[in-house]
Amino acid sequence: MLYFIGLGLGDAKDITVRGLELVKQCDRVYLEHYTSILTCGKEELEKFYQRDIILADREMVEQDAEEIMKDAETKEVAFLVVGDPFGATTHADLVLRAKEKGIPHKVVHNASIMNAIACTGLQLYNFGETVSLPFWTDSWKPDSFYSKILKNRECGYHSLCLLDIKVKEQSEENLVRGRKIFEPPRFMTTAQAAQQLLEIVENKPKSDSGIQLRADSLVVCVARVGADDQKIVTCTLQQATQEDLGGPLHSLVIPGELHYLEKDALNLWKSNS
Amino acid sequence: MLYFIGLGLGDAKDITVRGLELVKQCDRVYLEHYTSILTCGKEELEKFYQRDIILADREMVEQDAEEIMKDAETKEVAFLVVGDPFGATTHADLVLRAKEKGIPHKVVHNASIMNAIACTGLQLYNFGETVSLPFWTDSWKPDSFYSKILKNRECGYHSLCLLDIKVKEQSEENLVRGRKIFEPPRFMTTAQAAQQLLEIVENKPKSDSGIQLRADSLVVCVARVGADDQKIVTCTLQQATQEDLGGPLHSLVIPGELHYLEKDALNLWKSNS
Repeated sequence: MLYFIGLGLGDAKDITVRGLELVKQCDRVYLEHYTSILTCGKEELEKFYQRDIILADREMVEQDAEEIMKDAETKEVAFLVVGDPFGATTHADLVLRAKEKGIPHKVVHNASIMNAIACTGLQLYNFGETVSLPFWTDSWKPDSFYSKILKNRECGYHSLCLLDIKVKEQSEENLVRGRKIFEPPRFMTTAQAAQQLLEIVENKPKSDSGIQLRADSLVVCVARVGADDQKIVTCTLQQATQEDLGGPLHSLVIPGELHYLEKDALNLWKSNS
Repeated sequence: MLYFIGLGLGDAKDITVRGLELVKQCDRVYLEHYTSILTCGKEELEKFYQRDIILADREMVEQDAEEIMKDAETKEVAFLVVGDPFGATTHADLVLRAKEKGIPHKVVHNASIMNAIACTGLQLYNFGETVSLPFWTDSWKPDSFYSKILKNRECGYHSLCLLDIKVKEQSEENLVRGRKIFEPPRFMTTAQAAQQLLEIVENKPKSDSGIQLRADSLVVCVARVGADDQKIVTCTLQQATQEDLGGPLHSLVIPGELHYLEKDALNLWKSNS
Protein backbone atom coordinates (compact mmCIF):
# COMPACT_ATOMS: atom_id res chain seq x y z
CA MET A 1 0.00 0.00 0.00
CA LEU A 2 1.28 3.46 -0.91
CA TYR A 3 0.10 6.18 1.47
CA PHE A 4 0.15 9.82 0.39
CA ILE A 5 0.06 11.69 3.68
CA GLY A 6 -0.25 15.44 4.10
CA LEU A 7 1.74 16.96 6.98
CA GLY A 8 -0.05 20.28 7.21
CA LEU A 9 1.78 23.56 7.53
CA GLY A 10 3.43 24.03 10.91
CA ASP A 11 5.54 21.36 12.59
CA ALA A 12 5.49 17.64 13.43
CA LYS A 13 2.20 17.84 15.34
CA ASP A 14 0.23 19.11 12.36
CA ILE A 15 -0.05 15.61 10.91
CA THR A 16 -3.50 14.07 11.49
CA VAL A 17 -4.05 11.31 14.03
CA ARG A 18 -4.83 8.94 11.14
CA GLY A 19 -1.70 10.03 9.27
CA LEU A 20 0.52 9.48 12.30
CA GLU A 21 -0.87 5.98 12.89
CA LEU A 22 -0.12 5.06 9.29
CA VAL A 23 3.42 6.50 9.26
CA LYS A 24 4.27 4.53 12.39
CA GLN A 25 3.29 1.26 10.75
CA CYS A 26 5.07 1.83 7.42
CA ASP A 27 8.12 -0.07 6.21
CA ARG A 28 9.55 2.90 4.33
CA VAL A 29 8.86 6.60 4.81
CA TYR A 30 9.71 9.24 2.17
CA LEU A 31 9.50 12.97 2.73
CA GLU A 32 9.09 15.16 -0.32
CA HIS A 33 11.25 18.18 0.37
CA TYR A 34 11.37 20.44 -2.63
CA THR A 35 7.95 22.10 -2.97
CA SER A 36 7.52 23.15 0.67
CA ILE A 37 9.02 22.88 4.15
CA LEU A 38 7.84 22.59 7.75
CA THR A 39 9.19 24.75 10.57
CA CYS A 40 10.88 21.65 12.00
CA GLY A 41 13.59 19.48 10.47
CA LYS A 42 13.91 15.84 9.43
CA GLU A 43 15.38 14.77 12.77
CA GLU A 44 12.43 16.12 14.75
CA LEU A 45 10.02 14.33 12.45
CA GLU A 46 11.95 11.07 12.76
CA LYS A 47 11.84 11.33 16.52
CA PHE A 48 8.12 12.05 16.51
CA TYR A 49 7.29 9.23 14.06
CA GLN A 50 9.85 6.80 15.53
CA ARG A 51 10.77 6.05 11.93
CA ASP A 52 13.72 6.82 9.66
CA ILE A 53 12.89 9.22 6.86
CA ILE A 54 14.26 9.12 3.33
CA LEU A 55 14.39 12.59 1.79
CA ALA A 56 12.91 12.63 -1.72
CA ASP A 57 14.12 15.45 -3.94
CA ARG A 58 12.59 16.49 -7.25
CA GLU A 59 14.94 14.21 -9.19
CA MET A 60 13.85 11.17 -7.20
CA VAL A 61 10.13 11.91 -7.37
CA GLU A 62 10.02 12.85 -11.04
CA GLN A 63 12.61 10.50 -12.48
CA ASP A 64 12.97 7.67 -10.02
CA ALA A 65 9.42 7.08 -8.82
CA GLU A 66 10.00 3.34 -9.30
CA GLU A 67 12.24 3.43 -6.26
CA ILE A 68 9.49 4.96 -4.14
CA MET A 69 6.83 2.53 -5.39
CA LYS A 70 9.12 -0.52 -5.12
CA ASP A 71 7.38 -3.46 -3.39
CA ALA A 72 4.43 -1.24 -2.50
CA GLU A 73 2.11 -4.09 -3.54
CA THR A 74 3.21 -6.02 -0.46
CA LYS A 75 4.90 -3.43 1.78
CA GLU A 76 3.59 -0.30 3.44
CA VAL A 77 5.19 2.82 2.01
CA ALA A 78 4.45 6.37 3.12
CA PHE A 79 5.08 9.40 0.91
CA LEU A 80 4.88 12.48 3.10
CA VAL A 81 4.09 15.89 1.64
CA VAL A 82 4.11 19.22 3.48
CA GLY A 83 0.60 20.67 3.23
CA ASP A 84 -1.80 18.44 1.30
CA PRO A 85 -0.56 15.60 -0.93
CA PHE A 86 -2.16 17.20 -3.98
CA GLY A 87 -0.72 20.68 -3.54
CA ALA A 88 1.75 20.12 -6.39
CA THR A 89 1.11 18.66 -9.85
CA THR A 90 3.94 16.21 -9.51
CA HIS A 91 2.21 14.26 -6.73
CA ALA A 92 -1.02 13.90 -8.67
CA ASP A 93 1.21 12.39 -11.34
CA LEU A 94 2.64 9.92 -8.81
CA VAL A 95 -0.88 8.83 -7.83
CA LEU A 96 -1.69 8.28 -11.52
CA ARG A 97 1.41 6.16 -11.95
CA ALA A 98 0.56 4.07 -8.90
CA LYS A 99 -2.95 3.53 -10.27
CA GLU A 100 -1.57 2.46 -13.65
CA LYS A 101 0.72 -0.05 -11.98
CA GLY A 102 -2.17 -1.41 -9.94
CA ILE A 103 -0.51 -0.38 -6.68
CA PRO A 104 -3.17 0.26 -4.06
CA HIS A 105 -2.94 3.71 -2.51
CA LYS A 106 -4.64 5.88 0.06
CA VAL A 107 -4.56 9.61 0.59
CA VAL A 108 -4.59 11.38 3.94
CA HIS A 109 -5.47 15.01 3.36
CA ASN A 110 -4.32 17.98 5.39
CA ALA A 111 -4.32 21.75 5.33
CA SER A 112 -2.35 23.43 2.57
CA ILE A 113 -1.61 27.07 1.85
CA MET A 114 -4.39 26.79 -0.76
CA ASN A 115 -7.05 26.72 1.96
CA ALA A 116 -5.18 28.01 5.02
CA ILE A 117 -4.66 31.37 3.29
CA ALA A 118 -8.21 32.11 4.45
CA CYS A 119 -6.56 32.93 7.82
CA THR A 120 -6.09 36.41 6.29
CA GLY A 121 -9.86 36.88 6.41
CA LEU A 122 -10.11 36.74 2.63
CA GLN A 123 -12.80 34.28 1.55
CA LEU A 124 -11.55 31.22 -0.32
CA TYR A 125 -14.38 31.22 -2.82
CA ASN A 126 -13.26 34.66 -3.98
CA PHE A 127 -9.82 33.50 -5.05
CA GLY A 128 -9.07 33.15 -8.75
CA GLU A 129 -6.23 31.24 -10.32
CA THR A 130 -3.21 30.70 -8.06
CA VAL A 131 0.05 31.97 -9.51
CA SER A 132 3.70 31.10 -8.91
CA LEU A 133 6.45 33.73 -8.75
CA PRO A 134 9.86 32.43 -9.79
CA PHE A 135 13.17 33.94 -8.65
CA TRP A 136 14.48 36.27 -11.32
CA THR A 137 18.05 36.19 -12.48
CA ASP A 138 19.96 38.94 -14.27
CA SER A 139 19.05 37.46 -17.64
CA TRP A 140 15.76 35.65 -16.94
CA LYS A 141 12.84 37.75 -15.74
CA PRO A 142 9.62 35.93 -16.63
CA ASP A 143 6.44 37.88 -15.89
CA SER A 144 3.61 35.73 -17.29
CA PHE A 145 2.12 35.46 -13.80
CA TYR A 146 1.37 39.18 -13.95
CA SER A 147 -1.29 38.83 -16.65
CA LYS A 148 -2.93 36.13 -14.53
CA ILE A 149 -3.04 38.49 -11.56
CA LEU A 150 -4.64 41.17 -13.77
CA LYS A 151 -7.13 38.63 -15.13
CA ASN A 152 -8.11 37.70 -11.58
CA ARG A 153 -8.40 41.38 -10.67
CA GLU A 154 -10.61 42.00 -13.68
CA CYS A 155 -12.99 39.32 -12.35
CA GLY A 156 -12.79 40.77 -8.83
CA TYR A 157 -10.87 37.71 -7.58
CA HIS A 158 -8.00 37.60 -5.11
CA SER A 159 -4.68 36.19 -6.31
CA LEU A 160 -2.63 33.90 -4.12
CA CYS A 161 1.01 34.13 -5.17
CA LEU A 162 3.15 31.17 -4.21
CA LEU A 163 6.77 32.20 -3.90
CA ASP A 164 9.71 30.32 -5.31
CA ILE A 165 11.75 27.77 -3.38
CA LYS A 166 15.19 26.59 -4.44
CA VAL A 167 16.36 23.73 -2.30
CA LYS A 168 18.87 21.81 -4.41
CA GLU A 169 20.30 24.37 -6.73
CA GLN A 170 23.63 24.10 -8.52
CA SER A 171 25.70 27.11 -9.47
CA GLU A 172 26.16 27.50 -13.22
CA GLU A 173 29.77 26.51 -12.84
CA ASN A 174 28.98 23.35 -10.87
CA LEU A 175 26.22 22.49 -13.34
CA VAL A 176 28.55 22.85 -16.33
CA ARG A 177 31.27 20.84 -14.62
CA GLY A 178 28.76 18.20 -13.55
CA ARG A 179 29.66 18.63 -9.90
CA LYS A 180 26.87 17.64 -7.55
CA ILE A 181 27.57 20.54 -5.21
CA PHE A 182 24.45 22.39 -4.12
CA GLU A 183 23.85 25.97 -3.05
CA PRO A 184 22.20 26.72 0.31
CA PRO A 185 18.39 26.63 0.05
CA ARG A 186 16.65 29.89 -0.91
CA PHE A 187 13.06 30.87 -0.15
CA MET A 188 11.57 33.94 -1.78
CA THR A 189 10.42 36.56 0.74
CA THR A 190 7.36 38.74 0.28
CA ALA A 191 9.77 41.69 0.05
CA GLN A 192 11.55 40.09 -2.89
CA ALA A 193 8.24 39.16 -4.53
CA ALA A 194 6.95 42.71 -4.10
CA GLN A 195 10.18 44.09 -5.57
CA GLN A 196 9.80 41.93 -8.69
CA LEU A 197 6.12 42.83 -9.02
CA LEU A 198 6.88 46.52 -8.64
CA GLU A 199 9.40 46.34 -11.43
CA ILE A 200 6.78 44.78 -13.71
CA VAL A 201 4.13 47.31 -12.67
CA GLU A 202 6.44 50.19 -13.52
CA ASN A 203 7.14 48.78 -16.98
CA LYS A 204 3.65 47.72 -18.05
CA PRO A 205 1.12 49.45 -15.89
CA LYS A 206 -2.24 48.45 -17.42
CA SER A 207 -4.00 45.48 -18.98
CA ASP A 208 -5.91 45.96 -22.26
CA SER A 209 -9.09 46.58 -20.30
CA GLY A 210 -7.48 49.22 -18.11
CA ILE A 211 -7.05 46.99 -15.03
CA GLN A 212 -3.82 47.66 -13.23
CA LEU A 213 -1.76 47.01 -10.18
CA ARG A 214 0.00 50.04 -8.73
CA ALA A 215 2.72 50.80 -6.22
CA ASP A 216 -0.01 51.90 -3.81
CA SER A 217 -2.26 48.85 -4.39
CA LEU A 218 -3.07 46.86 -1.28
CA VAL A 219 -1.31 43.53 -0.80
CA VAL A 220 -1.32 41.00 2.04
CA CYS A 221 2.00 39.47 3.06
CA VAL A 222 1.94 36.22 5.03
CA ALA A 223 4.66 34.11 6.59
CA ARG A 224 4.66 30.68 8.25
CA VAL A 225 0.89 30.24 7.95
CA GLY A 226 -0.33 27.69 10.49
CA ALA A 227 2.76 27.95 12.70
CA ASP A 228 2.80 29.56 16.14
CA ASP A 229 4.74 32.56 14.85
CA GLN A 230 2.55 33.09 11.78
CA LYS A 231 2.64 36.68 10.54
CA ILE A 232 0.21 38.65 8.38
CA VAL A 233 0.76 42.21 7.18
CA THR A 234 -1.57 44.34 5.05
CA CYS A 235 0.27 47.16 3.28
CA THR A 236 0.85 48.69 -0.14
CA LEU A 237 2.92 46.90 -2.76
CA GLN A 238 5.57 49.61 -2.31
CA GLN A 239 5.66 49.15 1.47
CA ALA A 240 5.80 45.36 1.04
CA THR A 241 9.26 45.70 -0.47
CA GLN A 242 10.44 46.91 2.97
CA GLU A 243 8.50 44.52 5.23
CA ASP A 244 10.59 41.86 6.94
CA LEU A 245 8.39 38.91 7.91
CA GLY A 246 11.20 36.68 9.14
CA GLY A 247 11.89 33.06 8.18
CA PRO A 248 10.22 31.01 5.41
CA LEU A 249 7.75 30.19 3.93
CA HIS A 250 6.21 33.40 2.66
CA SER A 251 3.25 33.98 0.36
CA LEU A 252 1.71 37.13 -1.10
CA VAL A 253 -1.93 37.87 -1.78
CA ILE A 254 -3.18 40.52 -4.21
CA PRO A 255 -6.77 41.16 -3.13
CA GLY A 256 -9.52 41.67 -5.67
CA GLU A 257 -12.89 43.17 -4.75
CA LEU A 258 -13.39 43.18 -0.99
CA HIS A 259 -16.51 42.25 0.96
CA TYR A 260 -16.92 44.47 4.04
CA LEU A 261 -16.01 41.58 6.34
CA GLU A 262 -12.86 41.03 4.31
CA LYS A 263 -12.02 44.74 4.62
CA ASP A 264 -12.44 44.56 8.39
CA ALA A 265 -10.15 41.55 8.52
CA LEU A 266 -7.43 43.13 6.38
CA ASN A 267 -7.48 46.22 8.58
CA LEU A 268 -6.42 44.01 11.47
CA TRP A 269 -3.13 43.31 9.75
CA LYS A 270 -2.13 46.89 8.91
CA SER A 271 1.53 47.18 9.82
CA ASN A 272 1.17 50.56 11.53
CA SER A 273 -1.82 49.54 13.68
CA MET B 1 -8.07 31.18 24.86
CA LEU B 2 -10.45 30.43 22.01
CA TYR B 3 -9.25 27.65 19.72
CA PHE B 4 -10.65 27.31 16.22
CA ILE B 5 -9.88 23.72 15.31
CA GLY B 6 -10.45 22.10 11.91
CA LEU B 7 -11.54 18.45 12.01
CA GLY B 8 -10.77 17.55 8.42
CA LEU B 9 -13.13 15.60 6.23
CA GLY B 10 -13.49 11.97 7.26
CA ASP B 11 -14.04 10.83 10.83
CA ALA B 12 -12.69 11.41 14.34
CA LYS B 13 -9.09 10.52 13.42
CA ASP B 14 -8.79 13.27 10.82
CA ILE B 15 -8.14 15.87 13.50
CA THR B 16 -4.45 16.82 13.75
CA VAL B 17 -2.29 15.67 16.66
CA ARG B 18 -2.03 19.31 17.78
CA GLY B 19 -5.79 19.75 17.50
CA LEU B 20 -6.50 16.64 19.56
CA GLU B 21 -4.11 17.73 22.32
CA LEU B 22 -5.87 21.09 22.54
CA VAL B 23 -9.41 19.66 22.55
CA LYS B 24 -8.47 17.33 25.39
CA GLN B 25 -7.32 20.22 27.57
CA CYS B 26 -10.29 22.51 26.90
CA ASP B 27 -12.95 23.47 29.45
CA ARG B 28 -15.72 23.73 26.87
CA VAL B 29 -15.91 22.17 23.40
CA TYR B 30 -18.35 23.39 20.72
CA LEU B 31 -18.95 21.61 17.43
CA GLU B 32 -20.31 23.69 14.56
CA HIS B 33 -22.77 21.39 12.81
CA TYR B 34 -24.62 23.26 10.11
CA THR B 35 -22.14 23.90 7.30
CA SER B 36 -20.70 20.37 7.05
CA ILE B 37 -20.66 16.94 8.71
CA LEU B 38 -18.20 14.13 9.41
CA THR B 39 -18.92 10.47 8.66
CA CYS B 40 -19.08 9.84 12.42
CA GLY B 41 -21.50 11.26 14.98
CA LYS B 42 -21.18 13.40 18.11
CA GLU B 43 -20.96 10.39 20.44
CA GLU B 44 -17.98 8.91 18.61
CA LEU B 45 -16.19 12.27 18.76
CA GLU B 46 -16.93 12.63 22.47
CA LYS B 47 -15.50 9.19 23.14
CA PHE B 48 -12.39 9.94 21.07
CA TYR B 49 -11.82 13.35 22.72
CA GLN B 50 -12.91 12.22 26.21
CA ARG B 51 -14.85 15.47 26.35
CA ASP B 52 -18.50 16.45 26.19
CA ILE B 53 -19.43 18.33 23.05
CA ILE B 54 -21.93 21.17 22.79
CA LEU B 55 -23.55 21.29 19.34
CA ALA B 56 -23.56 24.81 17.92
CA ASP B 57 -26.20 25.47 15.29
CA ARG B 58 -26.34 28.50 12.99
CA GLU B 59 -28.51 30.44 15.44
CA MET B 60 -26.01 30.00 18.24
CA VAL B 61 -22.97 30.87 16.15
CA GLU B 62 -24.47 33.87 14.38
CA GLN B 63 -26.68 35.30 17.11
CA ASP B 64 -25.33 33.99 20.36
CA ALA B 65 -21.58 34.07 19.86
CA GLU B 66 -21.28 35.69 23.31
CA GLU B 67 -22.17 32.32 24.79
CA ILE B 68 -19.33 30.61 22.93
CA MET B 69 -16.80 33.30 23.82
CA LYS B 70 -17.90 33.54 27.48
CA ASP B 71 -14.93 33.49 29.88
CA ALA B 72 -12.58 32.67 27.00
CA GLU B 73 -10.16 35.25 28.46
CA THR B 74 -9.46 32.87 31.33
CA LYS B 75 -10.83 29.50 30.20
CA GLU B 76 -9.89 27.25 27.31
CA VAL B 77 -12.68 27.00 24.76
CA ALA B 78 -12.57 24.94 21.56
CA PHE B 79 -14.75 25.68 18.55
CA LEU B 80 -14.58 22.67 16.23
CA VAL B 81 -15.33 22.99 12.53
CA VAL B 82 -15.56 20.17 10.02
CA GLY B 83 -12.93 20.80 7.34
CA ASP B 84 -10.89 23.95 7.97
CA PRO B 85 -12.06 26.62 10.44
CA PHE B 86 -12.18 29.21 7.66
CA GLY B 87 -14.25 27.22 5.19
CA ALA B 88 -17.36 29.30 5.94
CA THR B 89 -17.66 33.08 6.14
CA THR B 90 -19.41 32.92 9.48
CA HIS B 91 -16.32 31.58 11.26
CA ALA B 92 -14.08 34.28 9.91
CA ASP B 93 -16.63 36.62 11.44
CA LEU B 94 -16.30 34.86 14.80
CA VAL B 95 -12.52 35.31 14.71
CA LEU B 96 -13.02 39.01 13.98
CA ARG B 97 -15.37 39.34 16.95
CA ALA B 98 -12.93 37.56 19.24
CA LYS B 99 -10.18 39.92 18.09
CA GLU B 100 -12.36 42.96 18.75
CA LYS B 101 -13.12 41.75 22.25
CA GLY B 102 -9.43 41.17 22.89
CA ILE B 103 -9.96 37.45 23.39
CA PRO B 104 -6.80 35.57 22.47
CA HIS B 105 -7.36 32.90 19.84
CA LYS B 106 -5.48 30.27 17.89
CA VAL B 107 -6.35 28.45 14.70
CA VAL B 108 -5.56 24.82 13.92
CA HIS B 109 -5.93 24.30 10.18
CA ASN B 110 -7.01 21.13 8.46
CA ALA B 111 -8.03 19.83 5.06
CA SER B 112 -11.26 21.19 3.60
CA ILE B 113 -13.15 20.36 0.45
CA MET B 114 -11.58 23.54 -0.97
CA ASN B 115 -8.17 21.83 -1.23
CA ALA B 116 -9.04 18.12 -0.95
CA ILE B 117 -11.05 18.37 -4.19
CA ALA B 118 -7.65 17.99 -5.88
CA CYS B 119 -8.10 14.24 -5.19
CA THR B 120 -9.99 14.27 -8.52
CA GLY B 121 -6.72 14.99 -10.30
CA LEU B 122 -7.87 18.50 -11.18
CA GLN B 123 -5.23 21.04 -10.24
CA LEU B 124 -6.20 23.47 -7.49
CA TYR B 125 -4.60 26.48 -9.14
CA ASN B 126 -6.94 25.99 -12.10
CA PHE B 127 -10.10 26.46 -10.06
CA GLY B 128 -12.03 29.69 -10.38
CA GLU B 129 -14.64 31.02 -8.00
CA THR B 130 -16.35 28.38 -5.85
CA VAL B 131 -20.14 28.37 -6.14
CA SER B 132 -22.93 27.18 -3.86
CA LEU B 133 -26.02 25.37 -5.17
CA PRO B 134 -29.09 25.87 -2.98
CA PHE B 135 -32.01 23.42 -2.82
CA TRP B 136 -34.78 24.63 -5.10
CA THR B 137 -38.39 24.76 -4.00
CA ASP B 138 -41.49 24.89 -6.20
CA SER B 139 -41.50 28.67 -6.04
CA TRP B 140 -37.83 29.55 -5.45
CA LYS B 141 -35.35 28.51 -8.13
CA PRO B 142 -32.31 30.79 -7.90
CA ASP B 143 -29.73 30.29 -10.65
CA SER B 144 -27.19 33.04 -10.11
CA PHE B 145 -24.49 30.39 -9.55
CA TYR B 146 -24.86 29.43 -13.22
CA SER B 147 -23.40 32.67 -14.54
CA LYS B 148 -20.44 32.18 -12.19
CA ILE B 149 -19.86 28.71 -13.63
CA LEU B 150 -19.95 30.16 -17.15
CA LYS B 151 -17.58 32.96 -16.14
CA ASN B 152 -15.14 30.35 -14.80
CA ARG B 153 -15.52 28.30 -17.97
CA GLU B 154 -14.84 31.38 -20.06
CA CYS B 155 -11.52 31.78 -18.26
CA GLY B 156 -10.78 28.05 -18.61
CA TYR B 157 -11.20 27.51 -14.86
CA HIS B 158 -12.81 24.57 -13.09
CA SER B 159 -15.85 25.27 -10.88
CA LEU B 160 -16.26 23.57 -7.53
CA CYS B 161 -19.96 23.45 -6.66
CA LEU B 162 -20.72 23.08 -2.97
CA LEU B 163 -24.11 21.47 -2.49
CA ASP B 164 -26.76 22.62 -0.06
CA ILE B 165 -27.18 21.25 3.45
CA LYS B 166 -30.34 21.71 5.51
CA VAL B 167 -29.81 20.50 9.05
CA LYS B 168 -32.29 22.41 11.18
CA GLU B 169 -35.13 23.22 8.86
CA GLN B 170 -38.67 24.02 9.93
CA SER B 171 -41.69 23.24 7.77
CA GLU B 172 -43.62 26.35 6.70
CA GLU B 173 -46.42 25.40 9.04
CA ASN B 174 -44.12 24.92 12.03
CA LEU B 175 -42.35 28.18 11.20
CA VAL B 176 -45.62 30.13 11.05
CA ARG B 177 -46.87 28.58 14.27
CA GLY B 178 -43.53 29.22 15.95
CA ARG B 179 -43.09 25.54 16.78
CA LYS B 180 -39.45 24.52 17.20
CA ILE B 181 -39.97 21.22 15.40
CA PHE B 182 -37.31 20.43 12.84
CA GLU B 183 -37.35 18.37 9.66
CA PRO B 184 -34.84 15.54 9.17
CA PRO B 185 -31.51 16.82 7.77
CA ARG B 186 -31.17 16.98 3.98
CA PHE B 187 -27.98 16.90 1.96
CA MET B 188 -28.06 17.66 -1.76
CA THR B 189 -26.78 14.79 -3.90
CA THR B 190 -24.82 15.25 -7.12
CA ALA B 191 -27.84 13.76 -8.94
CA GLN B 192 -30.09 16.51 -7.54
CA ALA B 193 -27.50 19.17 -8.35
CA ALA B 194 -27.12 17.87 -11.91
CA GLN B 195 -30.92 17.84 -12.31
CA GLN B 196 -31.15 21.50 -11.27
CA LEU B 197 -28.25 22.46 -13.52
CA LEU B 198 -29.77 20.60 -16.44
CA GLU B 199 -32.99 22.51 -16.02
CA ILE B 200 -31.08 25.80 -16.16
CA VAL B 201 -29.00 24.68 -19.13
CA GLU B 202 -32.14 23.81 -21.08
CA ASN B 203 -33.66 27.21 -20.39
CA LYS B 204 -30.67 29.47 -21.00
CA PRO B 205 -28.10 27.63 -23.01
CA LYS B 206 -25.42 30.27 -23.70
CA SER B 207 -23.63 33.19 -22.08
CA ASP B 208 -23.25 36.43 -24.02
CA SER B 209 -19.87 35.29 -25.25
CA GLY B 210 -21.20 31.96 -26.47
CA ILE B 211 -19.85 29.88 -23.58
CA GLN B 212 -22.24 27.17 -22.54
CA LEU B 213 -22.77 24.11 -20.45
CA ARG B 214 -24.62 21.27 -22.16
CA ALA B 215 -26.31 18.02 -21.24
CA ASP B 216 -23.26 16.20 -22.62
CA SER B 217 -20.69 18.40 -20.88
CA LEU B 218 -18.26 16.55 -18.62
CA VAL B 219 -18.77 16.82 -14.87
CA VAL B 220 -17.05 15.18 -11.90
CA CYS B 221 -19.22 13.92 -9.06
CA VAL B 222 -17.56 13.32 -5.69
CA ALA B 223 -18.85 11.93 -2.41
CA ARG B 224 -17.35 11.65 1.06
CA VAL B 225 -13.97 13.10 0.01
CA GLY B 226 -11.26 12.05 2.47
CA ALA B 227 -13.27 9.15 3.91
CA ASP B 228 -12.46 5.49 3.33
CA ASP B 229 -15.46 5.06 1.04
CA GLN B 230 -14.79 8.21 -0.99
CA LYS B 231 -16.28 8.03 -4.48
CA ILE B 232 -15.43 9.92 -7.67
CA VAL B 233 -17.32 9.59 -10.96
CA THR B 234 -16.60 11.35 -14.26
CA CYS B 235 -19.64 11.46 -16.55
CA THR B 236 -21.83 13.83 -18.54
CA LEU B 237 -24.16 16.27 -16.82
CA GLN B 238 -27.08 14.20 -18.14
CA GLN B 239 -25.64 10.94 -16.76
CA ALA B 240 -24.91 12.62 -13.44
CA THR B 241 -28.65 12.96 -12.82
CA GLN B 242 -28.75 9.12 -12.63
CA GLU B 243 -25.55 8.47 -10.65
CA ASP B 244 -26.06 7.32 -7.07
CA LEU B 245 -22.96 8.07 -5.01
CA GLY B 246 -24.42 7.02 -1.67
CA GLY B 247 -24.43 8.98 1.59
CA PRO B 248 -23.42 12.62 2.12
CA LEU B 249 -21.53 14.88 1.59
CA HIS B 250 -21.49 15.30 -2.16
CA SER B 251 -19.86 17.95 -4.34
CA LEU B 252 -19.87 18.56 -8.08
CA VAL B 253 -17.07 19.88 -10.27
CA ILE B 254 -17.56 21.45 -13.69
CA PRO B 255 -14.14 21.20 -15.33
CA GLY B 256 -12.77 24.02 -17.45
CA GLU B 257 -9.81 23.57 -19.81
CA LEU B 258 -7.99 20.34 -19.06
CA HIS B 259 -4.23 19.75 -18.89
CA TYR B 260 -3.31 16.31 -20.28
CA LEU B 261 -2.52 15.01 -16.79
CA GLU B 262 -5.93 16.20 -15.64
CA LYS B 263 -7.54 14.39 -18.58
CA ASP B 264 -5.75 11.17 -17.65
CA ALA B 265 -6.93 11.52 -14.08
CA LEU B 266 -10.57 12.17 -15.01
CA ASN B 267 -10.53 9.09 -17.26
CA LEU B 268 -9.81 7.00 -14.18
CA TRP B 269 -13.20 7.92 -12.76
CA LYS B 270 -15.35 7.16 -15.79
CA SER B 271 -18.33 5.22 -14.49
CA ASN B 272 -18.24 2.62 -17.25
CA SER B 273 -14.53 1.87 -16.92
